Amino acid sequence: MHFPALEQLVDVLGSLPGVGKKSARRIAFHILKSDPEISKRLSDSIATLRREVRFCSQCGGLAEAELCHICSDPQRDQRLLCVVEDPSDVFSIEDTGEFHGLYHVLMGALSPLDGVGPEDLRIEELARRIETHPFDEIFVATNPTLEGDATAHYISEMFADRGFRFTRISHGIATGASIEYADKGTLARSIRERKSLE
Amino acid sequence: MHFPALEQLVDVLGSLPGVGKKSARRIAFHILKSDPEISKRLSDSIATLRREVRFCSQCGGLAEAELCHICSDPQRDQRLLCVVEDPSDVFSIEDTGEFHGLYHVLMGALSPLDGVGPEDLRIEELARRIETHPFDEIFVATNPTLEGDATAHYISEMFADRGFRFTRISHGIATGASIEYADKGTLARSIRERKSLE
Repeated sequence: MHFPALEQLVDVLGSLPGVGKKSARRIAFHILKSDPEISKRLSDSIATLRREVRFCSQCGGLAEAELCHICSDPQRDQRLLCVVEDPSDVFSIEDTGEFHGLYHVLMGALSPLDGVGPEDLRIEELARRIETHPFDEIFVATNPTLEGDATAHYISEMFADRGFRFTRISHGIATGASIEYADKGTLARSIRERKSLE
Repeated sequence: MHFPALEQLVDVLGSLPGVGKKSARRIAFHILKSDPEISKRLSDSIATLRREVRFCSQCGGLAEAELCHICSDPQRDQRLLCVVEDPSDVFSIEDTGEFHGLYHVLMGALSPLDGVGPEDLRIEELARRIETHPFDEIFVATNPTLEGDATAHYISEMFADRGFRFTRISHGIATGASIEYADKGTLARSIRERKSLE
């Protein structure tokens, strides 16, 4: 049973996060069986997303213009900065309605084993932002994982002499879990109960 | 947080089998963050699959020509026919190396609650095939689910007076499970131990 075209699509689908080989094959069969309109919609949606959505040049979150709507909103608390790993974390935190400051997306977390160092994250951009902007509080909402904790520690050490108040998302979220998958209530509580970084 | 292009892709991805809303959002973010080459490969692979792979006009399995390579292989046992629900089941059964006859893919199973009747399946094609071709054994390998069992029963009743030997895949596979996801060993055993349909 050798279908190169099928195997190629299964390979590409299998490389997506959370899609195993069996799921990839199931999706490929679904695409093959379903209306051509479905596969066209999928390809078109991918192209539209890449064309219309980009990363905000300031915070690194999702944007439809040079600056995202949070960075360009004067109503947001300009003295409070929330540092997250991924653009999707901004969605999760906005969804709780508990945070009204600005964001900075690192695009990952420190992970020496995977070869991810400070130079691979948006830490230099964070330093530049902090230098030119008078924040009162830096709220580090990286995931409560080994990598997220290490990243939070690295950032608080790096900017320790600047006199900011550093806070860390409270560990209401189970250790080892991901902010993106936390339920809204737990995440809301862990924002309300955020504590100072020692 | 409103990005229509993102939401559209999440909707399309979420409609794929086994992909929930959170997984769909995770995949969409991955596509957005990764190299443009990845999204191009995904779109190209979908187009290539739709162009190069079709369904065999005889058995309904996957083919790259009018007939699939199993239907056009004179070495296969021409007197033994295996009836399955989906083209992917042919892959799983071929993978065991236990079956050397021909296939007939129904493209689903009877499911009155979902509005799937005999006319929605390739049962008429099966009748035509059986009329023109002298099979000794019809091996019904539909899934051991309510729908699969009902389909097996329907087929054995429909062709009861033709004098075929009807066999059914043995229930080594847990009831309610899917052939596609069975481990190879269990599936191989359930082919070896197939039994006559009462």
